[in-house]
Amino acid sequence: MAKETQSMALSVKKADDISTWYTEVIQKANMADYTDVSGCIVFKPYSYAIWEKIVKTVDDRLKAMGVKNVYFPLFIPERLLQKEEAHVEGFSPEVAWVTHAGDTKLDERLAIRPTSETIMYENYKNWVRSWRDLPMKLNQWNNVVRWEFKHPVPFLRTREFLWNEGHTVFATKAEAEKECNDILNMYDAVLRDHFALYGVKGKKTEKEKFAGAEYTMSIELLLPNGRAIQGPDAHHDGQNFAKAFGIKFLDKNEKEQYAWQNTWAITTRMIGVMIMMHGDDKGLVLPPKLAPITVAIVPIIFKDSKEKVIKKAREIKEKLKDYAVELDDREEYSAGWKFNEYEMKGVPIRIEIGPKDVAAGHVVMVRRDTMKKEFVKVKDIVPKIKKTLESIHDNLYKKSKKIFEEGVVEVKSMAEFKKAIDSKKMVKALFCGKKECEDLIKDETGGASSRNIPFGQKLVTGKCVHCGKQARYSVYFGKGY
Amino acid sequence: MAKETQSMALSVKKADDISTWYTEVIQKANMADYTDVSGCIVFKPYSYAIWEKIVKTVDDRLKAMGVKNVYFPLFIPERLLQKEEAHVEGFSPEVAWVTHAGDTKLDERLAIRPTSETIMYENYKNWVRSWRDLPMKLNQWNNVVRWEFKHPVPFLRTREFLWNEGHTVFATKAEAEKECNDILNMYDAVLRDHFALYGVKGKKTEKEKFAGAEYTMSIELLLPNGRAIQGPDAHHDGQNFAKAFGIKFLDKNEKEQYAWQNTWAITTRMIGVMIMMHGDDKGLVLPPKLAPITVAIVPIIFKDSKEKVIKKAREIKEKLKDYAVELDDREEYSAGWKFNEYEMKGVPIRIEIGPKDVAAGHVVMVRRDTMKKEFVKVKDIVPKIKKTLESIHDNLYKKSKKIFEEGVVEVKSMAEFKKAIDSKKMVKALFCGKKECEDLIKDETGGASSRNIPFGQKLVTGKCVHCGKQARYSVYFGKGY
Repeated sequence: MAKETQSMALSVKKADDISTWYTEVIQKANMADYTDVSGCIVFKPYSYAIWEKIVKTVDDRLKAMGVKNVYFPLFIPERLLQKEEAHVEGFSPEVAWVTHAGDTKLDERLAIRPTSETIMYENYKNWVRSWRDLPMKLNQWNNVVRWEFKHPVPFLRTREFLWNEGHTVFATKAEAEKECNDILNMYDAVLRDHFALYGVKGKKTEKEKFAGAEYTMSIELLLPNGRAIQGPDAHHDGQNFAKAFGIKFLDKNEKEQYAWQNTWAITTRMIGVMIMMHGDDKGLVLPPKLAPITVAIVPIIFKDSKEKVIKKAREIKEKLKDYAVELDDREEYSAGWKFNEYEMKGVPIRIEIGPKDVAAGHVVMVRRDTMKKEFVKVKDIVPKIKKTLESIHDNLYKKSKKIFEEGVVEVKSMAEFKKAIDSKKMVKALFCGKKECEDLIKDETGGASSRNIPFGQKLVTGKCVHCGKQARYSVYFGKGY
Repeated sequence: MAKETQSMALSVKKADDISTWYTEVIQKANMADYTDVSGCIVFKPYSYAIWEKIVKTVDDRLKAMGVKNVYFPLFIPERLLQKEEAHVEGFSPEVAWVTHAGDTKLDERLAIRPTSETIMYENYKNWVRSWRDLPMKLNQWNNVVRWEFKHPVPFLRTREFLWNEGHTVFATKAEAEKECNDILNMYDAVLRDHFALYGVKGKKTEKEKFAGAEYTMSIELLLPNGRAIQGPDAHHDGQNFAKAFGIKFLDKNEKEQYAWQNTWAITTRMIGVMIMMHGDDKGLVLPPKLAPITVAIVPIIFKDSKEKVIKKAREIKEKLKDYAVELDDREEYSAGWKFNEYEMKGVPIRIEIGPKDVAAGHVVMVRRDTMKKEFVKVKDIVPKIKKTLESIHDNLYKKSKKIFEEGVVEVKSMAEFKKAIDSKKMVKALFCGKKECEDLIKDETGGASSRNIPFGQKLVTGKCVHCGKQARYSVYFGKGY
């Protein structure tokens, strides 16, 4: 029983040292492993199964919105990457370059896509000719590489990651802006209904917007350690890329117009956010909609009652066939070891069943989020599991909302601002919107950056928290993960 | 009506010039486009939707076989790629190398994966410890790059392509060999039941096996132009990689053993094979199971009966809701133009419905494979469509089988061999199995290579077609695409 001797417990508490906790939990829960390529991880089956669930729900929603999937090359010739000025400036410091094929030096360096605008739009310009071709809503699911030099963290900051990148083209700015908003709402629904994560929708400041966009909208989240992190985003590019790449069409009056574009994405980073947000001192806590195993059934096996218990466990599995149920009847592991394992893996519900339970016509149900145990009659199991999964989801969502709400301090002065940041809070403050002012705030607070300008603001009256000039809006600031 | 003026017709007949035909059909059917990266294409929505269907059926079958999906890095450090001698020799001439990140020169060059053995197995050696960890059956769906210097052809030979790569580990050779065979049968079922393609299963010769494998099994197909092409393959690696990477485990007797491994793949190349095999002078002909649109309904619209016709067309679409039905009620295109378009796109069944048809309670049904037209009563439409789709599938499969069977000549001498190859046939011949003999055959025939050694051979008696020594088996030879 070699495996039994391996300690499953985490060596630190999440509240004491979340970084060590995170590193341990992703390894002990079999989510990821390091590789010989610095900053790149293996997505092990357990985390990849979560990604498949994320892909499925986002992809279904995109298809319902009329978006079609495509696949463009991994490589971008250097001269294409340079076509949009702000874009190349933003990305070139992080680009991985292919210079040779076999023994042959290439005539032109090829970038590994950090994002695909510049390889896609060179074709788009040939595909968009008339108003009849619009809207054109394309998306791809792929891998991208951004050679960040900051300390890599599995899922949260990896040099290669997986994502979807949507690239849509419209005849009018109004249509493009409407879609940008619809997409952000779609991502928000996925975060709420599948990740059980609360985030705040808003617009990025000029300083923080996507390289090449007219503006960027994002969903911002707050981790339990007071670090802000960005979720999915949607960029309205205006006509910036259309002008750089010549994406033009004849409108209904036969007049040539530049097209309007959006781009938007959700990435594997969200797996990391979910781990950090929901996990506890026993390991992962997975939201039911994304859990590869929804219910683990652990039979308590004694020699003389084994057959009877396994039989009942199989019956229960059959009753629950609408869920991903794992009946773990391995005999080389003890029940206690299995309990620890499913706790570490964050399986939403565990069912224990021994000979006495069979006799009594019930099972023991343990929900992972609260670790609350209760007896459940076998005849009630189907509705009970359904209700409990919903309750787990709601509980996780509420907790993540509470972390956000309790983690934000509204500040009126830079003294309050600094105090809040020092005590690991996010702040909400009136702000003038100027890049120079934002640069100074970052310097003076030891690294707090603007997160977003939340939607739904009434007309703002008041002064910028930093420069004291007329404020434009209320903005979230915080230290990023 | 700008689009109406664009000629939809193909400029050549398939039988006259299949290369030009292929190039035109993939563009006019909106399957692919060229890019600024030589040898890399765009998979447009229509071909990517086909790939999604292929992925779905293969992935479902793999999951049913207990295979789990993972994701490993795109990059392979040069020193890892070199660990297995035959493997590096086979792949390094085609490797794209990353040498820089941003402005920084990397300490070690990184290969873009041409296949992932060497990056995966470096982790496998840590994951496999005990017989309890085996079998370990992992797979990934990803992009790979092989910088071929031969003339690229969309789908059939591209420098970047998409595939699945399965990498499985077993405690015994027998288990590994059984799985290798099961996987080949699974791929064969997908080719038969989804692609409607006939292929022959067999073993590759020593000369043609995968770089690093103990042996390779493949499904070989024959295109209508007499060119042989390889379909999916499965490699039994023996302990070659296990020894190079140190993948060892303690067996039940606590004895250390090297593991046994397989790898296997199906690629986007199969989309090209399907196009070449089934297409005709009007464009694509798609097998129903892979067609993104199964049935296209084209209402014949006149001003006074428009509403009635559209209403009936919608009713029919609703009846056929189990299929991917496109009701094309665009008024900016004529019915005739739409007929051409759906023929070019290879949509299996077209339904035409005009005011007279509505009155008569029938529709006109046209099947794409034979272009046969018939009236179908609206009340019979559901079973009729089902039966017709099955018939189209069977017809395509039979045609591809006939192409193979009529394209092979059994030869007894090199004179017959050369004559057959010159007349664009594949040959079946007795062969000694020696690499030197195979090299000479290739030279003397202007490029014919062995395809595979078909399964199910009785004991062979006879002489090698080339050297006249004792033959080991009967082998298919042909010029590859």
